[in-house]
Amino acid sequence: MNRFVYADNAATTPMSESVFEAMKPFLTEFYGNPSSLYRIGREARRAVTEARMKVARALNAKDPSEIIFTGGGSQADNLAIRGYVKGRSARGKKHIITSKIEHHAVLYTCEALEKEGYPVTYLDVDAQGHVDLEQLKSVITDQTALVTIMAANNEIGTIQNLKAISEIAHAHGAVFHTDAVQAVGHMPLDVQEMGIDMLSLSAHKFRGPKGIGALYVRRGIALEPLVYGGGQERGLASGTENVAGMVGLGQAIEDATGEHLAEKMGYVKKLTDRLVRGIMDAIPYTHYTGDPVNRLPGTASFVFEAIEGEGLILRLDLAGICGSTGSACSTGSLDPSHVLMAIGLPHEIAHGSLRLTLGEQNTEEDVDYLIENVTKVVETLRAMSPVWVDGKPDLTAASDLHDDHHHHH
Amino acid sequence: MNRFVYADNAATTPMSESVFEAMKPFLTEFYGNPSSLYRIGREARRAVTEARMKVARALNAKDPSEIIFTGGGSQADNLAIRGYVKGRSARGKKHIITSKIEHHAVLYTCEALEKEGYPVTYLDVDAQGHVDLEQLKSVITDQTALVTIMAANNEIGTIQNLKAISEIAHAHGAVFHTDAVQAVGHMPLDVQEMGIDMLSLSAHKFRGPKGIGALYVRRGIALEPLVYGGGQERGLASGTENVAGMVGLGQAIEDATGEHLAEKMGYVKKLTDRLVRGIMDAIPYTHYTGDPVNRLPGTASFVFEAIEGEGLILRLDLAGICGSTGSACSTGSLDPSHVLMAIGLPHEIAHGSLRLTLGEQNTEEDVDYLIENVTKVVETLRAMSPVWVDGKPDLTAASDLHDDHHHHH
Ligand SMILES: Cc1ncc(COP(=O)(O)O)c(C=O)c1O
Ligand SMILES: Cc1ncc(COP(=O)(O)O)c(C=O)c1O
Repeated sequence: MNRFVYADNAATTPMSESVFEAMKPFLTEFYGNPSSLYRIGREARRAVTEARMKVARALNAKDPSEIIFTGGGSQADNLAIRGYVKGRSARGKKHIITSKIEHHAVLYTCEALEKEGYPVTYLDVDAQGHVDLEQLKSVITDQTALVTIMAANNEIGTIQNLKAISEIAHAHGAVFHTDAVQAVGHMPLDVQEMGIDMLSLSAHKFRGPKGIGALYVRRGIALEPLVYGGGQERGLASGTENVAGMVGLGQAIEDATGEHLAEKMGYVKKLTDRLVRGIMDAIPYTHYTGDPVNRLPGTASFVFEAIEGEGLILRLDLAGICGSTGSACSTGSLDPSHVLMAIGLPHEIAHGSLRLTLGEQNTEEDVDYLIENVTKVVETLRAMSPVWVDGKPDLTAASDLHDDHHHHH
Repeated sequence: MNRFVYADNAATTPMSESVFEAMKPFLTEFYGNPSSLYRIGREARRAVTEARMKVARALNAKDPSEIIFTGGGSQADNLAIRGYVKGRSARGKKHIITSKIEHHAVLYTCEALEKEGYPVTYLDVDAQGHVDLEQLKSVITDQTALVTIMAANNEIGTIQNLKAISEIAHAHGAVFHTDAVQAVGHMPLDVQEMGIDMLSLSAHKFRGPKGIGALYVRRGIALEPLVYGGGQERGLASGTENVAGMVGLGQAIEDATGEHLAEKMGYVKKLTDRLVRGIMDAIPYTHYTGDPVNRLPGTASFVFEAIEGEGLILRLDLAGICGSTGSACSTGSLDPSHVLMAIGLPHEIAHGSLRLTLGEQNTEEDVDYLIENVTKVVETLRAMSPVWVDGKPDLTAASDLHDDHHHHH
């Protein structure tokens, strides 16, 4: 009995029917350029305006003009961070504070800026992935331009205390950006209530299309453009608008937030709790990673000792299961994920990570199928493993193996 | 008898049925993230690879890895120019040469770099919009990093002598980038034959989707990334791939180039010649702008004395005609286009510009309808105009009027 169970909703989500239907007219009849003066141009312009209003409403932004559409979450992160420190509002302040568990769109932007002379502090996190607020307080100064901390982690699902972070940032005159790419549509977010100055999101993480995202930028904050040109998106992200993508993002965020959100979160959380319990009970030498309570409702993330994540994913694929190991964005790398390192997992066991992320489309039957098959595959792989001896991991052998790995890659 | 005639194909084009059909599966069932290891991820990866091959083939690139997908033509231009001068291959050389008639995606990138200490030379053009090659030879030095000149102009359609420009650039050790956003799919382009080192394109200009483009980057050229993150697009334009957009671009470029191109060009050129002749014959005090021979086959661009372009467009819209004045990307500005200024049109008459750009979907009946209605509308507007006196323009009155305009905007 081969089911197909998509359990990688943190990598991307299936686009919903309603989003496809909303986009379709803008891929066919309504093809006008929103900058054009005639009717079919104005129709496209109106659709873009409406999509912008939907995004603003979902985040409780004060004004739709605070929403800048970008080509995805990474572009939003780059615009926020580079755009802010190079822009007028930073008033020459250069210090950036971020965390060790950010997505590479944030981390590599910070590293590039470091090379350009911007000092960056990378905050530690505790074993569950919470940013160290005391450390934040101790490193922030009145020369800190920007604090950028993600809302929820893409690998382990841990949610940060955004309000506490924004208060510390603001007390020192710094601006607070949050990468909410994993959070939007999956937990409540209110930029005013939480004191968020900039927020990145990406449509494909909540059943919208790929290649479109947005940056919320509080009114009054001046950024350097990400893309120069015709002046679209208030001159910050020029280029002929991806009208269909924007409309799809608007529909997706409307579907994913508001009154529907609480019910969906409850449903997904119940499924995920069942999955976590099932796996932890069935498979010995398993570590649950992340915060078991304060996490994204759909994220279940584990580390199995004496397992190679990549082999696990490929075997699960044969059983019709889509899951991931490390971060979906770093295929090809055999280094263990920087997030798992930051929460203190030993190098040798961090290789055996599995992230299963559920969505509203998943069912209890999916969950039971996942538990059954993950258990089977882990058992099979361990039985074949040189570091699995007498029903338990042999860590000395494991560390030899990984040293060897590193010489090859 | 109200027809609908879309004659603004340089602003954007109607997406073709075949492109929509090619994209559809990637907006619905095949939603995998191309970075994922399981089957539906690998399928998405394969689709992206195939699209990249199609783009490479259309440009006669040596290798698909030379194609970097971006969120459109503006992003490609920004990546090429900023990425090159900040990158390793420029080896510290800083001088940039461009022209006065480039798109703002090029011009404003150059202006921003100028503020960051990169000297930029803006070449003049002649009355038909050809870059001054003698001036290029006289300003280029061995400190010139980059020459960036568009393949064909978006307002007047004039085609540049790319091979001559690349030879001059290469003779001085500079790299040659061309913004071919208006050219791809409308004229033959061969990056090897023409000595092009980097080339920008945008899918929606040849019946593909909006929000996706590409930069061809000759192997061996190292660029600074436009977007940092997960490392997609060889680390130059990170972010989860817009799979459907890439597939759409691949289909559109395949449809628009190759064996189909010559026939389409012939058909469109015949229509355009009929349009140009019709308008020039029917309307006095009209200036044809651009090169009447060496131009994009679909571009017909005029300036009518004693006419305001914006009023013209709005009246034509009422007759079901879509056309543009100045550049579609600069709506909201009442300044005459920088291109029309660069070819030497006096300020007072440059306001009366009309660009009609035809495509393969247009017919002879469309053209006759355009001639008839443009003639009627120009007559009506002139009859109402304070600067149209006794059947001819009164240029003294016109210049007063425009001074007034400038105080208001
Ligand atoms: C010559 C030229 N370059 C660049 C662009 C920018 O392309 P896009 O709007 O797809 O970013 C355009 C079109 O607007 C163009 O005509
Ligand atoms: C936390 C986080 N930030 C940023 C991104 C980048 O978003 P995108 O791939 O849409 O550019 C992702 C997803 O890959 C993510 O999970």
